[in-house]
Amino acid sequence: MIKVGVFGASGYTGFEIIGMLRRHPAVELAFATSESSAGLAISDLYPVPWPIPLVASAKAPLDQVDAVFCCLPHAASMPAVVAARQAGVRVIDLSADFRLDDVAVYKKFYGVPHTAPDLLAEAVYGVPEIYRDQIRSTNLLACPGCYPTSVLLGLYPLLKATLLNPAAFIIADSKTGVSGAGRKATLKTHFVEANENLSPYNLGQSHRHTAEMIQEINKLGGPGNNVIFSPHLIPLSRGMLSTIYITLAEDSSAETIHQLFTDTYADEPFIWVLPLGQLATMAHTQRTNRCAISITQVTTRLFIVCSSIDNLLKGASGGAVQNFNIMFGLTETEGLVQ
Amino acid sequence: MIKVGVFGASGYTGFEIIGMLRRHPAVELAFATSESSAGLAISDLYPVPWPIPLVASAKAPLDQVDAVFCCLPHAASMPAVVAARQAGVRVIDLSADFRLDDVAVYKKFYGVPHTAPDLLAEAVYGVPEIYRDQIRSTNLLACPGCYPTSVLLGLYPLLKATLLNPAAFIIADSKTGVSGAGRKATLKTHFVEANENLSPYNLGQSHRHTAEMIQEINKLGGPGNNVIFSPHLIPLSRGMLSTIYITLAEDSSAETIHQLFTDTYADEPFIWVLPLGQLATMAHTQRTNRCAISITQVTTRLFIVCSSIDNLLKGASGGAVQNFNIMFGLTETEGLVQ
Amino acid sequence: MIKVGVFGASGYTGFEIIGMLRRHPAVELAFATSESSAGLAISDLYPVPWPIPLVASAKAPLDQVDAVFCCLPHAASMPAVVAARQAGVRVIDLSADFRLDDVAVYKKFYGVPHTAPDLLAEAVYGVPEIYRDQIRSTNLLACPGCYPTSVLLGLYPLLKATLLNPAAFIIADSKTGVSGAGRKATLKTHFVEANENLSPYNLGQSHRHTAEMIQEINKLGGPGNNVIFSPHLIPLSRGMLSTIYITLAEDSSAETIHQLFTDTYADEPFIWVLPLGQLATMAHTQRTNRCAISITQVTTRLFIVCSSIDNLLKGASGGAVQNFNIMFGLTETEGLVQ
Amino acid sequence: MIKVGVFGASGYTGFEIIGMLRRHPAVELAFATSESSAGLAISDLYPVPWPIPLVASAKAPLDQVDAVFCCLPHAASMPAVVAARQAGVRVIDLSADFRLDDVAVYKKFYGVPHTAPDLLAEAVYGVPEIYRDQIRSTNLLACPGCYPTSVLLGLYPLLKATLLNPAAFIIADSKTGVSGAGRKATLKTHFVEANENLSPYNLGQSHRHTAEMIQEINKLGGPGNNVIFSPHLIPLSRGMLSTIYITLAEDSSAETIHQLFTDTYADEPFIWVLPLGQLATMAHTQRTNRCAISITQVTTRLFIVCSSIDNLLKGASGGAVQNFNIMFGLTETEGLVQ
Repeated sequence: MIKVGVFGASGYTGFEIIGMLRRHPAVELAFATSESSAGLAISDLYPVPWPIPLVASAKAPLDQVDAVFCCLPHAASMPAVVAARQAGVRVIDLSADFRLDDVAVYKKFYGVPHTAPDLLAEAVYGVPEIYRDQIRSTNLLACPGCYPTSVLLGLYPLLKATLLNPAAFIIADSKTGVSGAGRKATLKTHFVEANENLSPYNLGQSHRHTAEMIQEINKLGGPGNNVIFSPHLIPLSRGMLSTIYITLAEDSSAETIHQLFTDTYADEPFIWVLPLGQLATMAHTQRTNRCAISITQVTTRLFIVCSSIDNLLKGASGGAVQNFNIMFGLTETEGLVQ
Repeated sequence: MIKVGVFGASGYTGFEIIGMLRRHPAVELAFATSESSAGLAISDLYPVPWPIPLVASAKAPLDQVDAVFCCLPHAASMPAVVAARQAGVRVIDLSADFRLDDVAVYKKFYGVPHTAPDLLAEAVYGVPEIYRDQIRSTNLLACPGCYPTSVLLGLYPLLKATLLNPAAFIIADSKTGVSGAGRKATLKTHFVEANENLSPYNLGQSHRHTAEMIQEINKLGGPGNNVIFSPHLIPLSRGMLSTIYITLAEDSSAETIHQLFTDTYADEPFIWVLPLGQLATMAHTQRTNRCAISITQVTTRLFIVCSSIDNLLKGASGGAVQNFNIMFGLTETEGLVQ
Repeated sequence: MIKVGVFGASGYTGFEIIGMLRRHPAVELAFATSESSAGLAISDLYPVPWPIPLVASAKAPLDQVDAVFCCLPHAASMPAVVAARQAGVRVIDLSADFRLDDVAVYKKFYGVPHTAPDLLAEAVYGVPEIYRDQIRSTNLLACPGCYPTSVLLGLYPLLKATLLNPAAFIIADSKTGVSGAGRKATLKTHFVEANENLSPYNLGQSHRHTAEMIQEINKLGGPGNNVIFSPHLIPLSRGMLSTIYITLAEDSSAETIHQLFTDTYADEPFIWVLPLGQLATMAHTQRTNRCAISITQVTTRLFIVCSSIDNLLKGASGGAVQNFNIMFGLTETEGLVQ
Repeated sequence: MIKVGVFGASGYTGFEIIGMLRRHPAVELAFATSESSAGLAISDLYPVPWPIPLVASAKAPLDQVDAVFCCLPHAASMPAVVAARQAGVRVIDLSADFRLDDVAVYKKFYGVPHTAPDLLAEAVYGVPEIYRDQIRSTNLLACPGCYPTSVLLGLYPLLKATLLNPAAFIIADSKTGVSGAGRKATLKTHFVEANENLSPYNLGQSHRHTAEMIQEINKLGGPGNNVIFSPHLIPLSRGMLSTIYITLAEDSSAETIHQLFTDTYADEPFIWVLPLGQLATMAHTQRTNRCAISITQVTTRLFIVCSSIDNLLKGASGGAVQNFNIMFGLTETEGLVQ
C-alpha cells in the first residue's frame, strides 16, 4: 500500500481526491489537513459518512507517507511542497505554484514572488498525454489548471504536427460550472447570482491560466502568444467545455484532422475523440476522468475543436490521481472512471 | 406624488421594492440607504441601469418623505423605525420587529430584547386580506414574513369559518427558493451546495416565523399552538409553496370547502383560488404579487391546501407595496402584477 | 461470472443498471434490450463510450443468462417476466407489476388487469432491510417504487416496534427530481416548465405508489390506510426526500426514538441514521445507494422523520443491484456506493 | 385603441407577446390563435389567470384588427402573413419567412421553397437601431432571429464606421437558454438532459440564423461571409450572450471603440453600452427589452464584444412589440422594460 497525505482537504478538489483515494485499492490515506477545520472530520464539512480527521498542516506526519496531494491555494502551496520535498515525499501539487517555469511570469500573473524557485527545475507539468515519461520519474508533479487542460488537449495533436498558422489567433472560448470558483462563499458563487445567469470574466489574456497556455503552446512550437482565452461562468455545478477556433497553415479536410486526433490519442485511456458529426458536450465527461473532443471543419483552414472535461476530475483531482498512478507505476486508470 | 425612502436598499427585498417604486406612477423615490455601500449606486450592486445613489441611514432626509420602507434585518430595523416615526413618517417595515405583540415571544425567537415596545400598539400586521381596514389608517405597518403569508392565506377562510378541529395538528410543509436566505454569501447559499440539493431546516416549531403563525392563528380563534412548520430549501431563485395538511372538526366536501375559499376571497385582487382538480405550483405566482391556492380533499375531514406565492413579492416586497397602496388610498394593485 | 440481461435498457433505470453492472466484478452483461432503439447501441442514446448493442426483447437470449433485470414500464413488464421465469431465469423486476399482492388493487391503481397472477405468490417485495431472508431465495424480486422505499425505510423501525398511534395519519410529504418522470419528453419534463418551478401532483392517496405503502404498512401491523402521501416535483435531476410526520401512541423522547432507529439499522450497510440535531438532505445520498434518515421531535408524540435517497439508485437501480447481490450470495455492497 | 391579433399564441413567443399586450395601454387584443389548442384558453396552457380564448387561425377575424403578430414556425407563417396582408392588416412576423431577401438562400437554409416571394419587397428587417425609418412605414415587419439580434447589435457600430478587417473572421460564440428551443417537448429540452449540461450545436456556418447574419453584415458593407457562428445550449430558461471576436483593419484603443459604441447608440432606449471594465452578463438584460454590450480590447486590433439580450424579449417578442410601437407611432418603449 502506498501511504498518502492530502494537504487542503476541505475544498472541492481535496474532497474529490479523498473520495477517489478511499476507493483506490493501492492507497492508504494517512492524513488530511485543514487549517480552518482542524479538529473536525470530513463528515463535519460534507454530507458524507467519512469520519476522516482533519489536522493542521503543521501536524501532518510527513515521515509516514510516500506521497502528498497538495490542494492548497497558490502561494500557500509553496511552503507545504517545500516541507514535503525536504522530507523526501513525492508531491502532486494542484496549485499554480509549480506550473510556470519563469518566476517573473508567476509574479506577474499571481502577484506574489515565488518563494521556492529551486524546486522548479524538478517540477513536471502534469498532462499525461504530453509528458507521460517525465511524469513517471518526477518527485514534483504540477497539475495543470482546469482551463489549460481542456485547451491543451484540444490543441496538442495540431501542435505536435505543426499544423497551426503561426500568425493566426487561437481563440479558446471556455465555459465552466461554479465549482471552479471554489467552496468559498462569495457573491459570485451565490446561488441567486449565478443561477439563470452567464458571466464572462477575465477575457482576452488576463486570466491567470493564460500564462500556462502560452508557456505550453510555445514549448510545443506553437504561437502561444496568440492565444485569446475567454472564460465564462455558467449555472451548473461541474463541467467545462472549451470551444477552440484554430486556423491551419495549409488547407486540410475534416477527415484528415479527425484522423490526426484519433491517431495521436489512440492509446490514451481517457481521451475520447468523437466521430465526425458529433459534438462534445459536458455530459460526455461529467463525473468521469475523460476528455471528449470533437472536430468541426468550417472552411478549408478554420476548424472548431470542442474539448470537454469535468473541471474537478480531469481538470483537477482526477488528473492528479492519474498522474499519481503514473508516478507510482500503477495502472493508470485505477480509481478513475473512464 | 408621494415621497418615499427605502432603508436597506442593497438586499433583495430592498432592490425589489425600488424596482416597483420606479414604475409606480404615484411615487417619487427620495432616498435609498445602505450602510455597507453608502456612496455607491444601485447600479454598482446589481446589473441594472439605475444610478440611484445610496446614502448611510444617518444621512437619510426623513423630513422630505411621506413614507419609508424598512428593509433592514430584525433588530437593526427598530432604531430606523423609531427615527421615522419620530419624524412623523409612515412606516412599512419588512423586518420581524413589529410583527409580534408579545415582547417576550420576540425575545425568545429572535434572541434580543425589543427596544421599542411603545410602538407595538400602533403596529398593524400587514395581511391585507385579513386586516385591510386597520392597514388603511396605520402609521406603522409590519409586513408579515414570507412563510406566514403563504400559510395564513391558506388557512384564513377555514379559520374565519371556525372549521378546524381544534385538537388536530396543522402541518405546513413549506418549500422555498434561495433568495429567501438573503444576498449574504454563505455556504448555505453557495451555488454548488444548494444546486441539485434539497435541505429541510428548523423543522417543527423552531423556525422564527412559527411565532407569527401561532399568534395570528390564535387571534383568528384557531389552534395556533398546533402548528407544525417545516421549511425546505430548494434549488431555485424565487418562489414558495406551502403544502398544508388540515383536519376539519366535522365532515365536509371538496365543493363546500372550495366554495368557502372562493367566497372568502371573491373581492381580493391578488388571491387566485384554482378550480378543483388543479394544484397550485410555484409557476402560478412567480414574479407576480399573486397567491395561488388549491384545495384537495383526501378524507371527509383531512384536506390539503397548497398555497403558492413569490417569496420576494407577495411574501415580502410586493406585499409591502400593496400595503403602502392601501395606506395611502391608492389603487391597491398599482405597480404590482396581478 | 453471473450472466445477466437487461430488459428496457434505454430508460434512466436501465441505463443506471448497465453502468453498475459494467463495473461489477462478478457480472457479465449478456444482452440489453430496447424496442424503440433495437439495432443501435447504448452509446447512440447516451453520451457514454459504451458500444453495448441493443436488441429487441423478442431476440433476447434468455437461455444464456442467470438473471434479468426488467426495466420496462408497468404492464409491459409482465410478459417479459413470464418469459424469463419460463426459461428458468431469476428476475429482478423494477416495474410495479409484481409489487402488489392483490390483483384488484393492481387494477384499481394501474388501470389494467394483471395478466400473470400465478407468479405473484413467488414474488418478494425487495426492501432488503425488511425482507432480506425472503430475497435470498426468491426467483422473482419486485423492486419497490422509489417513493415507497423512502417512506418505508423512514417508518420501519416504528412499525416493527409497534409505536405508531393507529388512529393518527401518517403524512409523507415527498419531493423528487425530474428523472423520476422518466426519459420520455413531455411538457412536465420540459426544462423551461420544470426549471424554477415546484409542482405538487397526485396528492393524498391517488398516486400509484400509495398502494404499496398501504400494503406494506399493513403487513407490518401499522395503520396503512392512514397514509397521506404528497409527491412534489422539484427542479433537479435526481434525488428524493420524504418528510414524514408521525404520531406515537405514547409519549417518547428524541433519544429513545433515535436509538430505536440506530439499533434497528445497526447492521445495514446502506442506512445512515444521522446524529440527533442533523437533518437529512438530498446531498447526503445523491449518486449513492444510501438512505439517510433524520429524527426530529416536535411534541412528546409528534415526530418528523426525513428520509433521503437517490431516486435512481436506492430508489430503483441501486436497490435492484443490492437485491441481485443478495439473491446470488454476493457481497451485498458489490458495485454500489455506500 | 389599436386592435391586434396574435397568430400562434400557444408557444413561448406568442405567450410573451400576449403578456405584454395585456399591459399595453394602447392595445386591444382581438384574437389569439392556436391550431392544436383551439377551443381552449391561454389559462389552460399556462399557469396564468388569463381566460383568453384560442381560436383556429382559419376563424381569426382579420377584418377586426389593425395588426397581427405572427408567432408561427417558419413555412407555416407564410400563408397567415399572406392572408393578413390581403386583408389590409399590418404584420409583425416573428418567423424567418420574410427575413431573407433571396429565396434561394431561404430554400437552402430552411429546406422548403418560399411561397410568397412577392411580399419580400415590402418586408423590412426589424432591427430598430439600424432600420427605424423603414420600420415606421412598413406593412410587413420581419423580426430578426434572436441570435442575429445579439450579434448584429454587437457589430453595428463597427460596421457603420467601416472598421472591420475585411479579411478577418468574425467569430460569434453564442450561448442561450432552453426557451430558445421552443415549448415542444423533445429529448433536447428534457430537463434531465439539459440540466447540468452544455451542448454546442450547428457550429460554423450551418445554423439557419447564419444566413441572416451574412445578409445583414454584407448590407452594411462588412465581410458577411466571414462570420463563424457557434451556438451553445446552456442550462437556464431564458437569456442569450454572444461573445464576438472581431479584428479591426487598423490599430485602435479601447476608449476609441467604446466611444464609437456609446455615440452610435446614444439615443437608443434599449441599448446599454457598459462602461469600460465591465462585462455584459445575462443578468444585465433578463426579463427586459435591453441589449447590454461590453467592449474588451485584447490586442491593438483584436477586440471582444459581449452582447447580451433576453432571447424571448429583445430577441423575439419584446423586439416585436418595439417594432409595433414604431410602426404605429407610439412611444417606442410602451409596454416594455428598459
